[in-house]
Amino acid sequence: MQFTIKQIAHLLNGEVRGDGSLTVSKLAKIEQGNKGDISFLANHKYEQFIYTTKASAVIVGKDFVPKKDISASLIVVDNPYTSFTQLLEEYQKILNFSKKGIEQPVFVGEGSEIGEGIYQGAFSYIGNNSKIGKNVKIYPQAYIGDNVVIGDNTLIYAGVKIYNNSVIGNNCVIHAGAVIGSDGFGFAPQEDGSYRTIPQLGNVVIEDNVSIGANTTIDCATMGSTIIRQGVKIDNLVQIAHNVEIGKNTVIAAQNGIAGSSIIGENCVFGGQVGIVGHISIANGTKVGAQSGITKTIKKENTSISGMPAFELNDYLRSVSIFRKLPQLDKQVRDLEKRLEELIEEGLFSEA
Amino acid sequence: MQFTIKQIAHLLNGEVRGDGSLTVSKLAKIEQGNKGDISFLANHKYEQFIYTTKASAVIVGKDFVPKKDISASLIVVDNPYTSFTQLLEEYQKILNFSKKGIEQPVFVGEGSEIGEGIYQGAFSYIGNNSKIGKNVKIYPQAYIGDNVVIGDNTLIYAGVKIYNNSVIGNNCVIHAGAVIGSDGFGFAPQEDGSYRTIPQLGNVVIEDNVSIGANTTIDCATMGSTIIRQGVKIDNLVQIAHNVEIGKNTVIAAQNGIAGSSIIGENCVFGGQVGIVGHISIANGTKVGAQSGITKTIKKENTSISGMPAFELNDYLRSVSIFRKLPQLDKQVRDLEKRLEELIEEGLFSEA
Amino acid sequence: MQFTIKQIAHLLNGEVRGDGSLTVSKLAKIEQGNKGDISFLANHKYEQFIYTTKASAVIVGKDFVPKKDISASLIVVDNPYTSFTQLLEEYQKILNFSKKGIEQPVFVGEGSEIGEGIYQGAFSYIGNNSKIGKNVKIYPQAYIGDNVVIGDNTLIYAGVKIYNNSVIGNNCVIHAGAVIGSDGFGFAPQEDGSYRTIPQLGNVVIEDNVSIGANTTIDCATMGSTIIRQGVKIDNLVQIAHNVEIGKNTVIAAQNGIAGSSIIGENCVFGGQVGIVGHISIANGTKVGAQSGITKTIKKENTSISGMPAFELNDYLRSVSIFRKLPQLDKQVRDLEKRLEELIEEGLFSEA
Repeated sequence: MQFTIKQIAHLLNGEVRGDGSLTVSKLAKIEQGNKGDISFLANHKYEQFIYTTKASAVIVGKDFVPKKDISASLIVVDNPYTSFTQLLEEYQKILNFSKKGIEQPVFVGEGSEIGEGIYQGAFSYIGNNSKIGKNVKIYPQAYIGDNVVIGDNTLIYAGVKIYNNSVIGNNCVIHAGAVIGSDGFGFAPQEDGSYRTIPQLGNVVIEDNVSIGANTTIDCATMGSTIIRQGVKIDNLVQIAHNVEIGKNTVIAAQNGIAGSSIIGENCVFGGQVGIVGHISIANGTKVGAQSGITKTIKKENTSISGMPAFELNDYLRSVSIFRKLPQLDKQVRDLEKRLEELIEEGLFSEA
Repeated sequence: MQFTIKQIAHLLNGEVRGDGSLTVSKLAKIEQGNKGDISFLANHKYEQFIYTTKASAVIVGKDFVPKKDISASLIVVDNPYTSFTQLLEEYQKILNFSKKGIEQPVFVGEGSEIGEGIYQGAFSYIGNNSKIGKNVKIYPQAYIGDNVVIGDNTLIYAGVKIYNNSVIGNNCVIHAGAVIGSDGFGFAPQEDGSYRTIPQLGNVVIEDNVSIGANTTIDCATMGSTIIRQGVKIDNLVQIAHNVEIGKNTVIAAQNGIAGSSIIGENCVFGGQVGIVGHISIANGTKVGAQSGITKTIKKENTSISGMPAFELNDYLRSVSIFRKLPQLDKQVRDLEKRLEELIEEGLFSEA
Repeated sequence: MQFTIKQIAHLLNGEVRGDGSLTVSKLAKIEQGNKGDISFLANHKYEQFIYTTKASAVIVGKDFVPKKDISASLIVVDNPYTSFTQLLEEYQKILNFSKKGIEQPVFVGEGSEIGEGIYQGAFSYIGNNSKIGKNVKIYPQAYIGDNVVIGDNTLIYAGVKIYNNSVIGNNCVIHAGAVIGSDGFGFAPQEDGSYRTIPQLGNVVIEDNVSIGANTTIDCATMGSTIIRQGVKIDNLVQIAHNVEIGKNTVIAAQNGIAGSSIIGENCVFGGQVGIVGHISIANGTKVGAQSGITKTIKKENTSISGMPAFELNDYLRSVSIFRKLPQLDKQVRDLEKRLEELIEEGLFSEA
């Protein structure tokens, strides 16, 4: 899609300096911009690049005063970063809504209902008695089982698998390869050393505005529901076990693993590769450092923790810094022992 | 599916107290039960809920004596937990066997044989010369390559990918997105810094009663077989590298990574996110704490280990507890040094 | 496929000792060989097996002098290991090129171009305006979005998902379930505690000779490109976040996670389950121990590091060895304190 610089300035309530009739079709960083690109300058650290960029247009702030000649046309706005983000979002919207209609072949089972504005990619599958909302995009090869409910405007990318009875809200995004509703990992040990499978008959409930990363897995509950509350953002390759509940607006980076029945609070932030044992709860607002292992309930809200097992961040950092000099500490102790021994042997401790 | 309480009591060899003609259609926890649900009371810790539950029926033990009125009908059995598990399993069986027949389109290559009672979901693929047993369920978009063998009653969920020459036993469950038989990660360094691919020509052998979690990956052997013995239970997002062998009835939680050619014993239990280096062996019955890293062979059977690198659990716990107070230990040592120095300087060590 | 031992000897420039007219059809380890298999003996540690192997043929070196009778025919070559690898590679080539043509059904969007020698598996999908090179193999259920470019001789295994605008080079291998180009994990916190999605409009660029493991995920850049340079080898279940760049011939083992905008050098080697924070750079030739966490830029080339947070390997090993004996160190310190106190109390420090 091509737009004139003038059209974009109009969209952003900005003013053109230079040639407004040129067209742009792509967004780029200022240091990487080429002909036909539009970029922005928000941080004066990057000002040098505005004099050398090949981008056709640059969005700048009202306070920007050029020190040299600039080949790009400028669009002057109140806040260049906000304006550029607005452009990004408009662009994303156009991309999201470019896919419409039903490609062939697709499979739709009996009793399933599909709302208006659907995109159904080829080889996508919808089982029996599922309800798909309006403007949902189901990309190719996605699998939606029986009795699934999906809200409006939700994006289901290629090859996502959603097991029977899952419930997914409005405005969610589920990235390629994610698995929703696979069986929880429950096995009862038998006397002969083998394991008997504990049936997993619950489901997964995902509320509105949730984002699920590529190849992430969320298991169904044994009974009841594994619940992802509204606004939760989950990155790629994360494991959410059965009966977990994640509080609203919590952010979970890639490769976290949350074991069964743990309850995560609201507005928590988890770094990458964190592990959380089962059957504990994590208070609202907890911040967890990457690769930490949480082994017990966190009751106090808004703390930062780290380590395996995780404890208070500042204490952890102090322990870690001494871990690195453990060989020296060990030597200090041996020296002390030796010195004391020498002092005694040399008779420096006189008999009183 | 709906059953009367009387029908269920009959199935469980139980006795009805209350209205046996009511119908139930869902299993629920006692604290979450609603009309039409059946629940159970096994642990007297939960007794309070039996007086408030909205479930239509509750399974209780012979020794249960109500202290207040109960609105639910009761089914009295010898062991409520066992009876409820029996119900769960019956329910699971009905669910598993509800899918039958061949949806369209599917792809089946030349020379492949498919047993009776098959379910082949739409867009599933079977290559050439593969043999699929009886009552196998192949969910939509599953991929089964050439020369694959799959035993009876095995469930292959949506989007599972099984590479050529894999052998899978009876009564296995492979969850959505799992990859069986991808190339082992083998590359030979060349003089110019690049790597040459070492062909991976072996296969994966999975014995009977194995469960494989969603998006788990199991690589084929370089030559010979990567082997998963009978009864092994593997959770989601686990990586099993080439030429690994996992002994029977071993349980591996989510996000474990087992490097090439390692041999894992029988009846081991691995917590989540454990890593195991290549070319080692782990004795039968080893229990490994979450996030541990095992860097050398474990010879002694039935030990518990933890940490990175992993060592004996109790020792690990002691080390960890001191890790947390390292800053204090460091201070103690500095204090000792200072005190000894002061004592010497103050001349308290008299010349003998 | 069957070959006579004589044919294979000819291919390897070797000399037959024994019956050259026998046929072999499979490659096997010497200790596992059966009738119809060909094996090799390169390491005299395995010499015992040549006297008992059931393999029909064994490749041996010119310097090999049998001490007992051998039932297998021998193929005598200069370097048995090199010759066997050559056989493996020939075999792999035959396997790779056995798939040709277009299975039905497939989906190809408007404006897409596909080179000669293609294999398109059933249920594979190619969107609009994509360009696929020569001799590309696209296995069943693979998804290739719009405006994707794929070079010659690249293998795309079953169920791989490649998002719009991705660029993939020649001679690459992408294993089943890998996701290329999913949205970067970028969210801007809002005043009400919720997050606003930052549009991810960049792409992924994968250069020539790259290998990507099963179920690995590589996110697209926010703007610009996430870049995987030529010759990079990435194992299974690895997470590569937005705007990351990985230098040529770097090797990354399973379950690594590399956070956003980090720049990895050339010829690095990462053990399994390593985590790397965002916005740092790692010097060329860095070697990283399994399960390490890299929290800051590594400037010096060709160092080995380990630990969380990672530091120089030898220092790490020393710290780890003392970590294991922390309880003892703690006791030593307490003993020293006690002893000094006793000495003082006992008046052994005499008044000078």
